Formats: sequence, structure tokens, C-alpha cells
Amino acid sequence: MTLSPSTRTTLGRKRDRAATDRAELHAVLDEGLVCHLGFVRDGAPVVLPTAYGRDGDTLYLHGSTGARYLTGDELPCCVTVTHLDGIVHARAVMHFSMNYRSAVVHGVARRVTDPDERWHALRTVVEHLTPGAWDHARRPDPRELAATAVFSLDLAEASVKRRCGPPSDDDADVAADLAWAGVVPVRTVSGTPERAPDLPEHHALPPHLG
Amino acid sequence: MTLSPSTRTTLGRKRDRAATDRAELHAVLDEGLVCHLGFVRDGAPVVLPTAYGRDGDTLYLHGSTGARYLTGDELPCCVTVTHLDGIVHARAVMHFSMNYRSAVVHGVARRVTDPDERWHALRTVVEHLTPGAWDHARRPDPRELAATAVFSLDLAEASVKRRCGPPSDDDADVAADLAWAGVVPVRTVSGTPERAPDLPEHHALPPHLG
Repeated sequence: MTLSPSTRTTLGRKRDRAATDRAELHAVLDEGLVCHLGFVRDGAPVVLPTAYGRDGDTLYLHGSTGARYLTGDELPCCVTVTHLDGIVHARAVMHFSMNYRSAVVHGVARRVTDPDERWHALRTVVEHLTPGAWDHARRPDPRELAATAVFSLDLAEASVKRRCGPPSDDDADVAADLAWAGVVPVRTVSGTPERAPDLPEHHALPPHLG
Repeated sequence: MTLSPSTRTTLGRKRDRAATDRAELHAVLDEGLVCHLGFVRDGAPVVLPTAYGRDGDTLYLHGSTGARYLTGDELPCCVTVTHLDGIVHARAVMHFSMNYRSAVVHGVARRVTDPDERWHALRTVVEHLTPGAWDHARRPDPRELAATAVFSLDLAEASVKRRCGPPSDDDADVAADLAWAGVVPVRTVSGTPERAPDLPEHHALPPHLG
């Protein structure tokens, strides 16, 4: 299944950086932890970082019912997830770049009201953050559920863009042997888990965090 | 100097997570490598990852003159930079969270046309990516400059939000000793530089990459 070819998901330039495989969209989304959610408020763009989860071709977002942007039933939005993979050092500053993978999803997020789907969505978001967490921690009670807004966004209109590999210098600059050239890889890593100060000593690290 | 208290930079909720120190805004921006630039196109929000640089209270953005969103002289936008610092594991999934710092800048980016400021802006963006790179690599020639759009965004209207520390569980869940609780730190690290395949052997890693 290929990604949808709407006007706004057809890259205007650097088309060689576009991916057309839906599996790649899923991979970029699944590897991320934070998305940047863009919407329009009073005619101006707003971009906020937030958590998310994916099930098939549905992206789930959640937040407090007190969040201003989650008060309607529909939220026209753009959700972008970016992985920085490296800094590209070229012979010419013009060709400095970043290696990255990014997914951009356009659509209208819709409030989820069905109790079963809300439950499923919250599980999806939590399990996206840390697989195994949903079965380990206490699940939401009715009061908590009432305080949580859940939205779903169809992944129908999306694009993936990436850059990888060494710098793309002009031949003349390579021949002139002007400068060092290469890539400094960048990656996101997890550190050693830090126990909450009030966690009783008998608690070992649970298997899903091992 | 405090951050500006406009309506859209006054947090609607979780006000304890707001920072009011301009130095903190600068620190969050300076530590980031990728920003998420939001703007409105045909009435719909678009969020794209891009590079940037900061000088004082001016943020510089650049891109190809062929990029559709950089064709005007003004771009109403929102620029967000987010650092993920950890995954917060609580006793209740409701209190799962992320430790993070994020800066959100609202404003109108304006095309920079003055040649000296354009030069300064490009230097600022490149040096933000890797300090020392501007003096090491070949600087832009007139053809490259002509192909590059430069925009500046005043940092006058901005907010910083952060969460740090252990989970914030309900007292009853702590007392019930339900689950493991703590924080799994997340950080971004650089790997060993990878030389371009066509880089002559005599090139040692330059000092600014050491």
C-alpha cells in the first residue's frame, strides 16, 4: 500500500528523499516518542509536543479535557515525527545537512467517544511509550477517564522524508580537497532507570523495563 | 528579562511547568538541533522539521528558495524545540508522563534581504549545528547565496515549558504500593564520526569535531 499522493503530501523538492512505502511511515511513527502537533488557533499556527500511539492506520492522541486545543470534536491538524540520525559535514557549508527521517500526517483529528475505543486508544498511547506498562500499572478509573480527551487521526494523508548517507558535495569541492567531510551520527538512548524516591526497596525493576 | 505574557504564551494549564526566565528560553533553543516549524497553508496547519540558529533574541531559519513555504516576505509561524529527558513511570497509567523541556515561539518570520545580515544568519545557522564548521568549510558563493532564502523570527513572544523529577502519583496509589515507579532517562548522544567514502586518507578529524 503506498502513501497517498495528495498535493500537500507530494514533496515540492528533494523528491528523492520521499518514501512511498506505508511500512516506512509506520516505522518512523513507531520509533518516535514525541510528535509535534500543529493546529490553527485564531488564524495562527501553534505547534506543541505531545505523546501519541498508533494502531494500524490510526494515530491516537490524548490530553487533558482542560487543554484548550482539545475542546472541540474535530481538530484539523498536522502531526510530525522526526528522528535526527546525524549531522552531515560537507566541504562547503552550503551542503551541510542533517540525516533524518520524518513523517508528516495531515488530517482532521476526531474526538473518540466510544468507551471501548477510548480504552483501546489510551492503552495504545501508554504501550507506545513503554510496552508492558499498561499491564504493570493501575489502569484509569472513571474519574480519570472523564478528565481525559482522546482523539484519533487517520493516517490516510501522510508523507515520509529522509536523508541518509555521506555529504553531497560539488565535484569541484571534492577535487579541491577543501575540508573534512563525513557524518557525525546522532542517536537517542535510554539511561539507567531512576527509582522514585518513595518507591519501597523491595521493588525490583520490572521485566518490561529490563 | 522575563518572557512575554501574551495570551497565547500564558499556559492554560500545568502553569507550574512554565518558565519565565529568558535565559531558559535561550538554553532550550541553543541545545536543540532541529526545530518544528508550523505555518498555515490553504487554511491548514503544516509542521516541518528544519535547522535554525539563534543570535540574541533573533532566531534564523533558512532554506531553498525553491521551498514553497519560503516564497513570501513574511511567514506567520510557530517554532517549537523540544528536548525529551525521560519517560516517567507512575503507579497509575494516568500519571505516566515525559520529562522534557520545550520552547514555543510565536511570530511572523521575515525575509532577510540585507546581504550582511544574510551572511550573518547563515553563519549563525551553521555554527549552531556545529561550532567551528563555518571557519573549516568553504563558505557560500554568490550562486549558492542566490539559492538560499533566509528568514528571521523575533523571540519576543515565546514560552518555555518543562517537566522534571519523579512521577506525581496519587497518595493512595503510593500507599497501595501498586507498581514500580521512577524515570527512565532519555538523552541524545553523538556517535563516532564517519568519514565520507571519498575523503582522502590524510584528513584527520578537525579539532572542532574532536
